[in-house]
Amino acid sequence: MAQSFPGISVSDWYNEVVEKAGLAEHSPVRGCMTIKPYGWALWENIQRPLDESFRATGHQNAYFPLFIPLSFLAKEAQHVEGFAQECAVVTHYRIKTDIETHSVAPDPEAELEEPLVVRPTSETIIWNTFKNWIQSYRDLPLLINQWANVVRWEKRPRLFLRTAEFLWQEGHTAHATAEEAMEEALRMLEVYANFVQEYLAIPVIKGRKTPNERFAGAEETFTIETLLIDGKALQAGTSHFLGQNFARAFDVKFLNCNNQLEYVWATSWGVSTRLIGATILSHGDAKGLILPPKVAPIQIVIIPVWRSEEEQQKVTEHAHSMAQQLHTQGLRVKVDDDPQHRPGWKFNEWELKGVPLRFTIGPRDLAQGSVEVVRRHDGQKTTYSQAETLAQAKRWLDQIQQELFQRAKHRIEQNTHRIDSYRTMQEILEEKGGFILAHWDGTTETEVAIKEETGATIRCIPLDSVEEEGKCIYTGRPSQRRVLFARAY
Amino acid sequence: MAQSFPGISVSDWYNEVVEKAGLAEHSPVRGCMTIKPYGWALWENIQRPLDESFRATGHQNAYFPLFIPLSFLAKEAQHVEGFAQECAVVTHYRIKTDIETHSVAPDPEAELEEPLVVRPTSETIIWNTFKNWIQSYRDLPLLINQWANVVRWEKRPRLFLRTAEFLWQEGHTAHATAEEAMEEALRMLEVYANFVQEYLAIPVIKGRKTPNERFAGAEETFTIETLLIDGKALQAGTSHFLGQNFARAFDVKFLNCNNQLEYVWATSWGVSTRLIGATILSHGDAKGLILPPKVAPIQIVIIPVWRSEEEQQKVTEHAHSMAQQLHTQGLRVKVDDDPQHRPGWKFNEWELKGVPLRFTIGPRDLAQGSVEVVRRHDGQKTTYSQAETLAQAKRWLDQIQQELFQRAKHRIEQNTHRIDSYRTMQEILEEKGGFILAHWDGTTETEVAIKEETGATIRCIPLDSVEEEGKCIYTGRPSQRRVLFARAY
Repeated sequence: MAQSFPGISVSDWYNEVVEKAGLAEHSPVRGCMTIKPYGWALWENIQRPLDESFRATGHQNAYFPLFIPLSFLAKEAQHVEGFAQECAVVTHYRIKTDIETHSVAPDPEAELEEPLVVRPTSETIIWNTFKNWIQSYRDLPLLINQWANVVRWEKRPRLFLRTAEFLWQEGHTAHATAEEAMEEALRMLEVYANFVQEYLAIPVIKGRKTPNERFAGAEETFTIETLLIDGKALQAGTSHFLGQNFARAFDVKFLNCNNQLEYVWATSWGVSTRLIGATILSHGDAKGLILPPKVAPIQIVIIPVWRSEEEQQKVTEHAHSMAQQLHTQGLRVKVDDDPQHRPGWKFNEWELKGVPLRFTIGPRDLAQGSVEVVRRHDGQKTTYSQAETLAQAKRWLDQIQQELFQRAKHRIEQNTHRIDSYRTMQEILEEKGGFILAHWDGTTETEVAIKEETGATIRCIPLDSVEEEGKCIYTGRPSQRRVLFARAY
Repeated sequence: MAQSFPGISVSDWYNEVVEKAGLAEHSPVRGCMTIKPYGWALWENIQRPLDESFRATGHQNAYFPLFIPLSFLAKEAQHVEGFAQECAVVTHYRIKTDIETHSVAPDPEAELEEPLVVRPTSETIIWNTFKNWIQSYRDLPLLINQWANVVRWEKRPRLFLRTAEFLWQEGHTAHATAEEAMEEALRMLEVYANFVQEYLAIPVIKGRKTPNERFAGAEETFTIETLLIDGKALQAGTSHFLGQNFARAFDVKFLNCNNQLEYVWATSWGVSTRLIGATILSHGDAKGLILPPKVAPIQIVIIPVWRSEEEQQKVTEHAHSMAQQLHTQGLRVKVDDDPQHRPGWKFNEWELKGVPLRFTIGPRDLAQGSVEVVRRHDGQKTTYSQAETLAQAKRWLDQIQQELFQRAKHRIEQNTHRIDSYRTMQEILEEKGGFILAHWDGTTETEVAIKEETGATIRCIPLDSVEEEGKCIYTGRPSQRRVLFARAY
């Protein structure tokens, strides 16, 4: 399926477009990225509606420390096993400079008694805090979210998709009953699915992870999975039912309404700057980014075209006046009137940056009261009257948002394969990738064997999967439902 | 001058009010704090208008890595000297767990080749990046801001005022000329002064730091200083003219319009969560916080009062209907209809939390169409008609904002002393603290001697200081202007 970019792999295309479009770049610190202004503006447009959704579902923001004492991480056995391999560890609190040798080094006399880990996720430090915040059922549910940076050391970093430091939000909630915690975990999965589909125009499949793919310390991990243009899957967000694991590890009990002490039930859930990578790899094409209007930092670029100086002044003024009117409608508009570059250069530049709509205005348009309108995602070029352009711009953007979603949905459907033979599955994975819906016998053993042989993992057991008698494609043992396989980021 | 709190030091009062009002608490990681939802909401109300001011002055947000290679920090000699004593150093990227002994420790086989410092400030990593972003004068000015967490190890941490990890924004700009960079540094000082005075109702004195008190690596540091209720000064924000120091250290040159290569000129400027501490210690009283309406998470609390169940339903409904109408006006309102607590308890609770206005509605108010209105900052209690309350609420809040500023201004004026004798200065500092305006001979030697003997530092040389012949209070040597001394946080 992999969308083809002339003479370049999707991976190289991705790196190039992220840097050239001004979204982000590699920093000299291995695995860490610099998010450039255009990329940051996109992240802000992702944060805002997400934050509103969290508030609308009753959550409050707070902020917990960057550092976690090593002993905290160790309190939940599975948790520490899951994160031990990728932790940045602070061991000293001072550096020593030697003026003569021009050397700097950690001061050996300033070693911490207990090393600190830069948070890879905050369950442990937060549950240690919740212990003091929760006494009785009246303190529950406790619904907290945090916007923060986290660090997980990465061997093979990719901008946005897998970086050592990344930005995210992590929700952490505490409940009186298992049912309520499970409802919360599913509610936030729904919030994520709605946001990603509605704002990023990325279709997702909601499902539960197999025990082998669960978050370290969770009893159940829910996920939203999508398929990118290169035929690889991406986990776009996860929501965990943590049972009473962290409450036990940090001894967090509450007095229930029968005056009995019980351990508290927990969830956690998060999405990250990875969503930017998902957006790029869901919609982009050979010309560069294609950004969904709802999150695009610039929704419309207006390019005035002129030959003479007199024309320049007139079309530029006109372009700014149109921009002003569109701005009043709440649209994000930019006029590119830079005299340093020719229109053709600008067309390429703003296509690369994925701006959904381009309005071009030349002297003839000025005379005729017209505007040339070009849609980024399909290149459709139409001339409209200025009045209609101003009246319809908002609707056009909504339409583009819908079309992007439908196009991605169609692409994913085309590349989702119901397979009953292991050989066919292997062939499809080798040739074009994609989602594979196949029967599995439910054992970790089989799951691991398939992963080792094909590189594909079980992305999820879809929540909407129907019961269906079948045989595991690998072992032939009985299976009740198909699960979703793919090679993944 | 120190405001007296019955039977408690200002320092203890501060710690108690920060924790009891639900702003923040100490975390188990020494020096790091947990910002609780109420404190976080306050921080968001500080961030929003500041961020708008930065945009309005042409700045763009971006994000740079949390980690700085040790060698980068070392490139600017003064800079590394200034921060070496307080750096958190990452030396390992993996931890090792031993299941048998239940021990966890940094994995000795995963030591970083070069240690990383958790950013105490980002000049070095940013200027290393700017090198690639700047080629010619067309790339200038480059006006970048970042919202981030930073870490400076603290021996004597105080919630908000001095924590190992704190949240802030740091602006970093690059310019073609020294003049332009200097203008920028002063422009941002003005932005800070306006924000702090207008939103936090905290009067500040703008000035320049002495060479001895400059930011490590700056050629000129501008500051806004205020005086708190305990008679101690606080630096509320700084803006630095960095000259070409960082451009030289990271070899950042640009081609000027005469086609010559020149080093770039720089500024940096920042304010932090410390502003929350400044707000608490500018306005609070024995009953707790007093928050300025413009940043208060809750501007008005409505407390329905009842005896019977029938009354409860009626007054509660009425309170919510009023809240709805105030909310429509864009005001932040909360109804406290919790049946668990009595009105008296609620009055104390919301006074502690510093909510500017309290509306109480009982059955008699319902019958008479009246509301009891109490202003937090002076306890003034008045009964108004409901109609007037709804019509005037916004204006009352504006008035409270003004009165808080005026009250603080008066307090600071009362405690600013023009002193010509060193003995008097010592006495005032011992007895009541405050700002001291006195002559100084301009030498670091004298500055340091005064600091050692009195604990007071030169907070700044006020920008509006007038030329005045005088004699240094310490050495008797000639001086042209008074400078501002105080003991400080």
